[in-house]
Amino acid sequence: MEKTDILVLGGGPAGLVTAGTARSYYPDKTITLARNVEQAVVPCGIPYIFNRLGSVEKNLVPDAGLAKQNIQLLIDEATGLDAEAHTVTFASGRVLEYEKLVLAVGSAPVQLPIPGADQEGVFYVKKDPAYLKTLYAAVQSAKRILIIGGGFIGVEFAEEIGSMPGKEVAVVEMLPCCLAQAFDKELCSAGEAELTALGVQLYTGRKVLQITGAGQATGVKLDDGTELPADLVIFSIGARPNVALAQEAGLTIGYSRGIWVDEYLRTTAPDIFAVGDCAEKKDFFTRKVTPVMLASTASAEARIAGANLYSLRVVRDNRGTLATFSTRLGKTTLAAAGLTERRAREEGFDIIIGHAKTINRHPGSLPGAHTTEVKLIFSADSLILLGGQVAGAQEAGELINLIALALQNQMTATQLETLQVATHPLLTPAPTVYPLVTAAMQAIAQS
Amino acid sequence: MEKTDILVLGGGPAGLVTAGTARSYYPDKTITLARNVEQAVVPCGIPYIFNRLGSVEKNLVPDAGLAKQNIQLLIDEATGLDAEAHTVTFASGRVLEYEKLVLAVGSAPVQLPIPGADQEGVFYVKKDPAYLKTLYAAVQSAKRILIIGGGFIGVEFAEEIGSMPGKEVAVVEMLPCCLAQAFDKELCSAGEAELTALGVQLYTGRKVLQITGAGQATGVKLDDGTELPADLVIFSIGARPNVALAQEAGLTIGYSRGIWVDEYLRTTAPDIFAVGDCAEKKDFFTRKVTPVMLASTASAEARIAGANLYSLRVVRDNRGTLATFSTRLGKTTLAAAGLTERRAREEGFDIIIGHAKTINRHPGSLPGAHTTEVKLIFSADSLILLGGQVAGAQEAGELINLIALALQNQMTATQLETLQVATHPLLTPAPTVYPLVTAAMQAIAQS
Repeated sequence: MEKTDILVLGGGPAGLVTAGTARSYYPDKTITLARNVEQAVVPCGIPYIFNRLGSVEKNLVPDAGLAKQNIQLLIDEATGLDAEAHTVTFASGRVLEYEKLVLAVGSAPVQLPIPGADQEGVFYVKKDPAYLKTLYAAVQSAKRILIIGGGFIGVEFAEEIGSMPGKEVAVVEMLPCCLAQAFDKELCSAGEAELTALGVQLYTGRKVLQITGAGQATGVKLDDGTELPADLVIFSIGARPNVALAQEAGLTIGYSRGIWVDEYLRTTAPDIFAVGDCAEKKDFFTRKVTPVMLASTASAEARIAGANLYSLRVVRDNRGTLATFSTRLGKTTLAAAGLTERRAREEGFDIIIGHAKTINRHPGSLPGAHTTEVKLIFSADSLILLGGQVAGAQEAGELINLIALALQNQMTATQLETLQVATHPLLTPAPTVYPLVTAAMQAIAQS
Repeated sequence: MEKTDILVLGGGPAGLVTAGTARSYYPDKTITLARNVEQAVVPCGIPYIFNRLGSVEKNLVPDAGLAKQNIQLLIDEATGLDAEAHTVTFASGRVLEYEKLVLAVGSAPVQLPIPGADQEGVFYVKKDPAYLKTLYAAVQSAKRILIIGGGFIGVEFAEEIGSMPGKEVAVVEMLPCCLAQAFDKELCSAGEAELTALGVQLYTGRKVLQITGAGQATGVKLDDGTELPADLVIFSIGARPNVALAQEAGLTIGYSRGIWVDEYLRTTAPDIFAVGDCAEKKDFFTRKVTPVMLASTASAEARIAGANLYSLRVVRDNRGTLATFSTRLGKTTLAAAGLTERRAREEGFDIIIGHAKTINRHPGSLPGAHTTEVKLIFSADSLILLGGQVAGAQEAGELINLIALALQNQMTATQLETLQVATHPLLTPAPTVYPLVTAAMQAIAQS
């Protein structure tokens, strides 16, 4: 029987990082990475294939890195797992024996069981280059594009396609505003304003009841009676962990329908790990299961799993998943880390909020000047940071990582108030009004 | 006698932030801020008045903020201090009694005692709008501009003026390369390459012996015999704390010739604090005195002093000054925090270094893509982070603050390896190659 020391199933960020980390920690082991698609796509780059990148090809991950790290690549679909025998069976009939197995098999788009959803012209966001090429062509030829779901992927599709000449884009979102899971209302509004400025129509607080058409989608019916015409319908209403293989092999599946894993990404079966979208996550603050599916989270997990396959070498410091997002809509970067105000209250935290609004250059007449708004949420008694949200320019993509780092260190408002940062006229707000500091001061003033 | 509860001397960032913080912590106290210039300039904006801002006026701090916070503004020069009587005498003859005094009197440019340095056409970088207007006019009319000193201010002047049509700019630097105090050689080279690309001539490893000319500067003579012609000579070779007032009043002056202060910015005289450039700083890692003079450091100190004037309300968490710089030369942002490799070795640290080089977008063909290079320095045994340097695009100005925050939390390479960050195609490198993480992994691989 064919053998490999380490077998990684899945070629997305979780699989790639696990294999690469394993290579650096275990230079003498043979490593095989198996995936079920000819080429791997950059998952978070998918919204940008239509215009900014201009093709699916430009969003592919080159395989050269694998060869360079002496990682065997196998294009095949895993169809069976025998956890006791330590073997995986593939669609081709191949059977591979492993010492350590890592399931990095990702997630699949949620499909709504509504009438008409199985017609031509209805698409999902799949990480499959062949499928994406069909979607790419459909977007190029369509005029009216309707996106169902106003989360990150949905609004990014809307922004990208809405920036293309001649396209009419609409978004339908069940919650009261787009991006409502990640941001509080005022930040959501900033994002919605950018979409509206591009001419994107927003239908929030409404559900889709039906996709109209006779074989070819022609539009949707909403629960308030609205009928919207469309040449193309794209669903982006979330994803579910791929757990069939694990479930059939008898591994425990968690409450969130992800594969149950411990602090070190070990499943209930010996020598089998699970990382990324297919593995269940626990919230950083409450230890509840949380449905976060992010390439950055997957990469962090993959580094822990990859290092710890044969013994626990990297002691895990992060006590859970800190949801940390960023996106860019028009000229505004929106980013969030940790709990929103709404979620903090729902979880029962007694909170204080600090706001800051400033310009990201000093003086503000320098080139590239843009408003930066920061909202920080603190525990009222301990003044420990619980979450933060930013609306700003390009560099807000790293400013949110400052907030994420402060969260991971359980920093307090007092520590943030006396933070030592670098500031520069062409790069940041003035040191006198650095927004993390002023938001912390504002919170302290209320305590 | 005129009285004020809190008297702040100095209208730069240190003075402004002290007064503002005092206002929020002590709403019932009267606060007076006295400064010796008609209007306050943004200190770090000075290099950009010549071209990007286009005037001295655009680099002034508006006084409206003071009035809004009910802070009395006094334009007068403090000439005497009686620490026992709690009074300050001003040039106008006015005497003001205080409960608490904060010295935020800044620093003055170092002047070289070389022949010819007192001629017309020789300038220093002073935070005085009237003086800067003269310098502004001189720069506009000069063709050959020679800058002595290749530290931050010197290279920023060179880049700004070097970007103006028809200017020939040269920099003379005593050390082997420009920016050598803040960066290791490879990063200095990245900065020098940007200057050279703008046509700026660099004369490193050489000292100026003489300013030539007969009343009007015509050039300089270097210690290797080189003679360089110039219409205008600008010195930017550092600054010394303004301590005359404090010294005459009997306050202790430290080894670095700054005013001695304790952890809470208290001088040796009761009820007198000193913050910013005029106050002595201690290094974060070694507790040695360090000559760091940065508006960001001054602001952090000012927040501690401002809050703690009447009792210690904000307990200081930062155990010393973490030098954290950023600048932008051409298309490259250079930034540093903590110890350089060279300084870490000089101080006796046994170190491991991790490097990462990546693209700040994913895939790298997205708009705005630019190389991001990170160098991290760790203690070899504890793997605690000691310093970091970045060369990258615009957002490197915030990426360095991530490193600064990690330093302030004494984070280890293991913690950085499993960091949870937000990544986005249009905003950051890919999660699989986030540079702080990969540099940490590279360091661990060597440990």
